[in-house]
Amino acid sequence: MKTPAIDALTRRLASQVVYQILPERFAIGGGLSSRDKLADPAYDLPGAVKRDWDDTTLNQSWGQQFFGGDLDGITAKLDYLGDLGVTGVYLTPVFPAPSNHKYDATDFFSVDAMFGGEAALQRLIQALHARGMSLTLDAVLNHVSDQHPWFLAAQAGDLTKRDWFTFREDGSYLCWQDYGPMPELNLSNPAVRDVLYRDPDSLVQHWLARGVDNWRFDVAQDVGIPVAQEMSSIVGARFPHAGLLGELNGFSGSWFEAGGGFQGMMNYWYRTATLAWLAGEIDSVQMNHAVRDARMGYGLKGLLCSWNMLSSHDTPRLITSLGDAEKARLALLMQFTLPGVPLVYYGEEIGMEGGADPDCRRTMRWDPAQWNHAQRDWVKRLISIRQTNPALQVGEVTVLGDRLAGNALVFLRHTVVPGEEALVIVNNADEPLQVRLMLPYSHWYDGVPLRDALGAAPDTKVQAASVKLDIAPRSGAVYQATEPHTHYTYFKPRNRG
Amino acid sequence: MKTPAIDALTRRLASQVVYQILPERFAIGGGLSSRDKLADPAYDLPGAVKRDWDDTTLNQSWGQQFFGGDLDGITAKLDYLGDLGVTGVYLTPVFPAPSNHKYDATDFFSVDAMFGGEAALQRLIQALHARGMSLTLDAVLNHVSDQHPWFLAAQAGDLTKRDWFTFREDGSYLCWQDYGPMPELNLSNPAVRDVLYRDPDSLVQHWLARGVDNWRFDVAQDVGIPVAQEMSSIVGARFPHAGLLGELNGFSGSWFEAGGGFQGMMNYWYRTATLAWLAGEIDSVQMNHAVRDARMGYGLKGLLCSWNMLSSHDTPRLITSLGDAEKARLALLMQFTLPGVPLVYYGEEIGMEGGADPDCRRTMRWDPAQWNHAQRDWVKRLISIRQTNPALQVGEVTVLGDRLAGNALVFLRHTVVPGEEALVIVNNADEPLQVRLMLPYSHWYDGVPLRDALGAAPDTKVQAASVKLDIAPRSGAVYQATEPHTHYTYFKPRNRG
Repeated sequence: MKTPAIDALTRRLASQVVYQILPERFAIGGGLSSRDKLADPAYDLPGAVKRDWDDTTLNQSWGQQFFGGDLDGITAKLDYLGDLGVTGVYLTPVFPAPSNHKYDATDFFSVDAMFGGEAALQRLIQALHARGMSLTLDAVLNHVSDQHPWFLAAQAGDLTKRDWFTFREDGSYLCWQDYGPMPELNLSNPAVRDVLYRDPDSLVQHWLARGVDNWRFDVAQDVGIPVAQEMSSIVGARFPHAGLLGELNGFSGSWFEAGGGFQGMMNYWYRTATLAWLAGEIDSVQMNHAVRDARMGYGLKGLLCSWNMLSSHDTPRLITSLGDAEKARLALLMQFTLPGVPLVYYGEEIGMEGGADPDCRRTMRWDPAQWNHAQRDWVKRLISIRQTNPALQVGEVTVLGDRLAGNALVFLRHTVVPGEEALVIVNNADEPLQVRLMLPYSHWYDGVPLRDALGAAPDTKVQAASVKLDIAPRSGAVYQATEPHTHYTYFKPRNRG
Repeated sequence: MKTPAIDALTRRLASQVVYQILPERFAIGGGLSSRDKLADPAYDLPGAVKRDWDDTTLNQSWGQQFFGGDLDGITAKLDYLGDLGVTGVYLTPVFPAPSNHKYDATDFFSVDAMFGGEAALQRLIQALHARGMSLTLDAVLNHVSDQHPWFLAAQAGDLTKRDWFTFREDGSYLCWQDYGPMPELNLSNPAVRDVLYRDPDSLVQHWLARGVDNWRFDVAQDVGIPVAQEMSSIVGARFPHAGLLGELNGFSGSWFEAGGGFQGMMNYWYRTATLAWLAGEIDSVQMNHAVRDARMGYGLKGLLCSWNMLSSHDTPRLITSLGDAEKARLALLMQFTLPGVPLVYYGEEIGMEGGADPDCRRTMRWDPAQWNHAQRDWVKRLISIRQTNPALQVGEVTVLGDRLAGNALVFLRHTVVPGEEALVIVNNADEPLQVRLMLPYSHWYDGVPLRDALGAAPDTKVQAASVKLDIAPRSGAVYQATEPHTHYTYFKPRNRG
């Protein structure tokens, strides 16, 4: 398996830690309460249910209940995010839409008044960029709201819009997952591709020109690989620094093939494997193979730019999925050390609970008395370890755990620079992992001392291309080489290049 | 592992199901009995033993006992073969020779009178082609009969033929496996290569020009890779649609290398692994690796064009090898779903028994009262499944079973076209296989329903790149996606391009 050279875009994308926010649920700008904010006329919609920020039951009329979160609220919390250590923010859709989640857009060229309009978006972009942080927005190319003017015109018989959708003989139309309020755009129509991503002022290009850094594209399987390839080619020529990522709830190997496509994908593959392994549904052989499959199927660059996610607005929260804080710690350790960009769904760092949508979309808790501080310290430590070791950001991965008895995920991360390595062990067994591991790696010479950056496992050292491990039950380690490297002239500055 | 594009020749070869016939033992044309047929002067040979069709003991003077089968007999049974579902016929040698098996040719440019001469061959070719079926003949490039005029001339001192063979000082000569009646041709002699495959009217080219579709070359290890490469280059230039396949009783990786060689090989590697695994001699780790080894060593195209065989005229029959009809069903399931062309040795579909040569060469049973109808139904069903799913004919293979506890062979077949897939599971354990399997494949989206084409295993569905399996002991499944795919527009015709 040949390690490809890492280009600048891959390096920029892969070195991030991204924080996902559902704007309606994160924070309200200007210090307003929900009651005050929801008095805004933007919320005067049929069926809208207005809630207090601290209400936690979200089990009915879920698309229409509002708490008042907005973009200025996010801007006001950037100190919190900076302290946590994240380097980028991903927002679910911000364009005008009748629902709280905004996946049913009625316009792609303005920002919803509930969220503060475009002025609030520009304030957020400016504040993020001032901190060296990036912004990723969420685009739905597959469907719009049935209240979108394009669809209303098409329904009314406007011949210039009729073929933007797919109507059947009986007047019914293709809609997403057979859900009538979300008619599907006809991506075979060149005019639709023009307005979505081909024209200089198309949806995708419009917002990149206005300071947005990256896009996350909803339901990639519905959009299709040919569209992803064409879009990547056209948009990449004008915006070579923009990241284009797709959502696919499964294995994403085919989305990086020659000819274009996305730089990264939402790596649900890891999530499925991680949760199944920690729950005992798959064993360590499948777990280790899952990482190797991703490396082979996505390619190193595609894998490094994909988002390692453990939860999202579409899934139960981590601690609710695993039912166990100790397992959640192991899952987070994997999320921050496996190749790919850690994607932290808002509130996971403080151990928020929540079942399937809509319960996973509760409002962010801002009272530290409600936080799980141990989990927050763990996340901060993992971010710090990842962001100070290039191997964990842009390094190759060599999977080793499937050659061991026991129940451990073991892998080595390493760049082409000697000294940039990390040996990661996650022991998911109720027994200690006490084993000698053969290490097929050329730059850890006999005698190199290794130390666990997590501070838990005992110091060890390389012994002629092997290492003796002693990892506690339900625990892990991130071994890095410590000084003295000076015995090895290869590590001296003159030989590093 | 990059999946290569599938060219037209590979597609044509790989989409076949081939039925192997020993012409002397399959059927007699014209409704004749053995007694009537064997009255033909062609059988007036020294040492010939004339048998009745229903005699089943073949344990003496095996090369000289005759039952009277011929080419018109095969032509008369094409309805039977068409009903079974096979798409091609492979005949062991048909050229004049003193033995019943005809691997000791005395002429390469006519058809044995016992089999009806060339007129009968042309009738068979015409009838096969009228049904869209192909014909593969068997060429022995390594040796001839010691009664062949070339050898008789060489022995008599004809200087133009002396170097066509290899004589020692003492007058003895190189012969196949030290078997005197089969002197070896000297393939280092350009004149021998000319008459075998270089000249426009050489053995190989002569019969392709007369309507034969493909060749199977006997004892490839004796012929050698350089001859295979040269022959492939010369013959392929004139007959680009002809398949050239070699026989090798072992791993055939080296026969497909750059520079030419055979399109496919007789895959004895699979046979060894399949029978050893079902007999408990190797475990599922070795079995799964054997498939991966073949994929890596043969390359996808070489593997797809190779013949998946469970028995032949040189081995005991399947049911006799395994001693168990249930295991035979699993072996057949593997034969029809692993990458490669199923090669059905005549009579296997009706469960004929037979030990080592000559016992495996009993005459075909035509009385349905003697058939194992369950086995025949199984074979027909497997052919139908394979021939209606391009993934099983020309698809890539991803081996998954070595990551599971238990004792199962598991692999995914898939083309580059979404919707063309099959997930195959063969559970060789005495316990059910109940497991969640990670599925590193991009086009089976979350929620896609899966159904076992064999009708045995319960319906299941894809769950975020994984699937829960529940496979009965000593059983298998061929899961295919069922509708509705309509929720995923990627499967809609408009986005396939």
